[in-house]
Amino acid sequence: MAFITLTTDFGRKDHFVSAVKGAIYNLLPETTIVDISHEISPFNITETAYILKNAYRSFPKGSIHIIGVDSEMTPENKHIALLLDDHYFVCPNNGIMSLIASEINPTKIVEINIHDRVETSFSVLDVFVNVACHIARGGTLEVIGKPMTEIKKTVELQPQTISENKILGSVIYIDNYGNVITNITKELFNTVGKGRDCVISVGRYTFKKVHSKYSDIVNFELPTHQRNAPGTKMALFNSGNYLEIAIYKSNLQTVGGASTLLGLDYRSSISIEF
Amino acid sequence: MAFITLTTDFGRKDHFVSAVKGAIYNLLPETTIVDISHEISPFNITETAYILKNAYRSFPKGSIHIIGVDSEMTPENKHIALLLDDHYFVCPNNGIMSLIASEINPTKIVEINIHDRVETSFSVLDVFVNVACHIARGGTLEVIGKPMTEIKKTVELQPQTISENKILGSVIYIDNYGNVITNITKELFNTVGKGRDCVISVGRYTFKKVHSKYSDIVNFELPTHQRNAPGTKMALFNSGNYLEIAIYKSNLQTVGGASTLLGLDYRSSISIEF
Amino acid sequence: MAFITLTTDFGRKDHFVSAVKGAIYNLLPETTIVDISHEISPFNITETAYILKNAYRSFPKGSIHIIGVDSEMTPENKHIALLLDDHYFVCPNNGIMSLIASEINPTKIVEINIHDRVETSFSVLDVFVNVACHIARGGTLEVIGKPMTEIKKTVELQPQTISENKILGSVIYIDNYGNVITNITKELFNTVGKGRDCVISVGRYTFKKVHSKYSDIVNFELPTHQRNAPGTKMALFNSGNYLEIAIYKSNLQTVGGASTLLGLDYRSSISIEF
Repeated sequence: MAFITLTTDFGRKDHFVSAVKGAIYNLLPETTIVDISHEISPFNITETAYILKNAYRSFPKGSIHIIGVDSEMTPENKHIALLLDDHYFVCPNNGIMSLIASEINPTKIVEINIHDRVETSFSVLDVFVNVACHIARGGTLEVIGKPMTEIKKTVELQPQTISENKILGSVIYIDNYGNVITNITKELFNTVGKGRDCVISVGRYTFKKVHSKYSDIVNFELPTHQRNAPGTKMALFNSGNYLEIAIYKSNLQTVGGASTLLGLDYRSSISIEF
Repeated sequence: MAFITLTTDFGRKDHFVSAVKGAIYNLLPETTIVDISHEISPFNITETAYILKNAYRSFPKGSIHIIGVDSEMTPENKHIALLLDDHYFVCPNNGIMSLIASEINPTKIVEINIHDRVETSFSVLDVFVNVACHIARGGTLEVIGKPMTEIKKTVELQPQTISENKILGSVIYIDNYGNVITNITKELFNTVGKGRDCVISVGRYTFKKVHSKYSDIVNFELPTHQRNAPGTKMALFNSGNYLEIAIYKSNLQTVGGASTLLGLDYRSSISIEF
Repeated sequence: MAFITLTTDFGRKDHFVSAVKGAIYNLLPETTIVDISHEISPFNITETAYILKNAYRSFPKGSIHIIGVDSEMTPENKHIALLLDDHYFVCPNNGIMSLIASEINPTKIVEINIHDRVETSFSVLDVFVNVACHIARGGTLEVIGKPMTEIKKTVELQPQTISENKILGSVIYIDNYGNVITNITKELFNTVGKGRDCVISVGRYTFKKVHSKYSDIVNFELPTHQRNAPGTKMALFNSGNYLEIAIYKSNLQTVGGASTLLGLDYRSSISIEF
């Protein structure tokens, strides 16, 4: 039983996603296909990397992850397939994988060469499906591509350790609740902070504590009316271990979330002083 | 073959839903996972109950339904698993199940106690997946929780029978077409109305007939230009047997639906006089 | 292993889609159900036809495609099931299939007659699921309907060949990137154009070349700052072989797409002079 996942900026209304699924089932009727996300902002490789990085690890080892974001082949954007952390990825060589592979080195990388001069504006359907099904059938990467050693690096928003007392980071993602995720990991925070007190500054706001779950800010021993209410802002390490600025029980569609209420957006800065 | 369904307020862009699916497939590769909804308004348990109540009954008996809405565990929001109407539910004890169980008593309820002091902001991934897979493998509820007898009641919008001639109700849901669903069921309507004529009042509008399908308001024996056109407002019992105020062939994105055109919203009142 | 696909205007928040899936699994637990689209604009049969036409062909032959758009049965909108291009379709006879069948004749058509006077506002659940599962089990169309020879024709936006030098067409779809798809196919373009040069006029803009992929407009031999940048407008034949007006690397949510930037919408005209 093979697992193939899809991460794209195709949206769900158009025929793109289902055409790809149909083609996979046509080749391998027994495959399990799972949507990771199709709502990536068009061509946004930072979002793609953040979402896929937090999703792929849950899947069974040997799963094959197709990435359809900015995937049209050009002289500067070739197609690659790689094995990393016991998972396969089939994707454009546009820097996405360098964000995912920042902590783990790929075991094997090939540049896909089965194109036969196909001129296509729909690489996922016309190329990636065949590659993924080849791998799902137990085929080797060498059969569909030429081994290579380096993937394209992306100069992306990276947190900087300014001094032994200070980290500078950025907002890399806004989630469904409007919570704001930064590129500062728990690991970096602990390495630099060494357990010291800290002040986190973001926009006009500061936080002195990083929580481990949302309801931490509520003191359930107090009577209800004396507690921190929904709408309280907070910092926490989220389930992916990234530093997140959140609003307790926020709702982007009504009262707003951390992004709208605190005026934070993709690329906003955050600093931590210990 | 086990069926596990997911009903959450996670949205579909983030990694939350696919991380949960990957974890289930990792434990039980042969499971069939079905999305009920991931577009619940954040933390809205009334919406959750309405959607799940109308969906779960279609599924095979023995299906396992995971609810990920307001699911972070707190001293006042424990996790439960229960068997009701031959279906399993794994969810927070936050009142959702009392809305679903309003007509059917659970056969068995346990408070989940496999947490091992896990501090997590992602209970669905870290707790509910394990419970659901345990049940899917044929495990008993007693192994993963402590039997209990009462679930938390929600004081929710309930229809009131004011006199033998009058029912007062509320809007509980707005659907994809902008149609407005109230908490007055066909059963209550018939019990109080006993077949008598009625006047339904909602906002500034009144209706004297409750239809059983949308096209009922069109008289197909008339020439086209003399018929009720798309845009005509009407009352009907919808497919879930709830009293619904609808606009024939409405489109929220263009001409509007009953909610926008009649100025009705969640919690708006409706009254029926016989 | 049967494949059943769903194309509806139900949206993904309500219980409609999952209730249908549950009912199918209840009858045929081993079915693979695939969403084609649930974001069709309410009651829009042109959109439905465009999306389904471009998706169904990818699926294995023998797949069963349920269409839930404008599907309530009325005296003028009966239910049909048909075999076309080795695929089965279960749908209302409201003109959708005439758009899909414009190039291929159905092998067999029946008017579904298993309704037993069911008055339902949810035909997909109460009628189409049973028909689809009957077909999936290997049942014949004659068992669930009465053979007929003609499906309802839709007078839809059709391209016109004005003279041997001119084609007039219309916009029939806006995709996820805001790209604008017209009803002029590559085949028609080549038949009329016979390889001659052309001028494409749409709104206030003209194009003299039709590309075969988006990145065609970038000359990768030039230094980066001298190249056509994201935001350049272009015409191309898309992956479905329809003439499309696109903006290179557009993003409807931020900078806009061809639809918003060029002021084009559903039904806008396009002309080609050779």
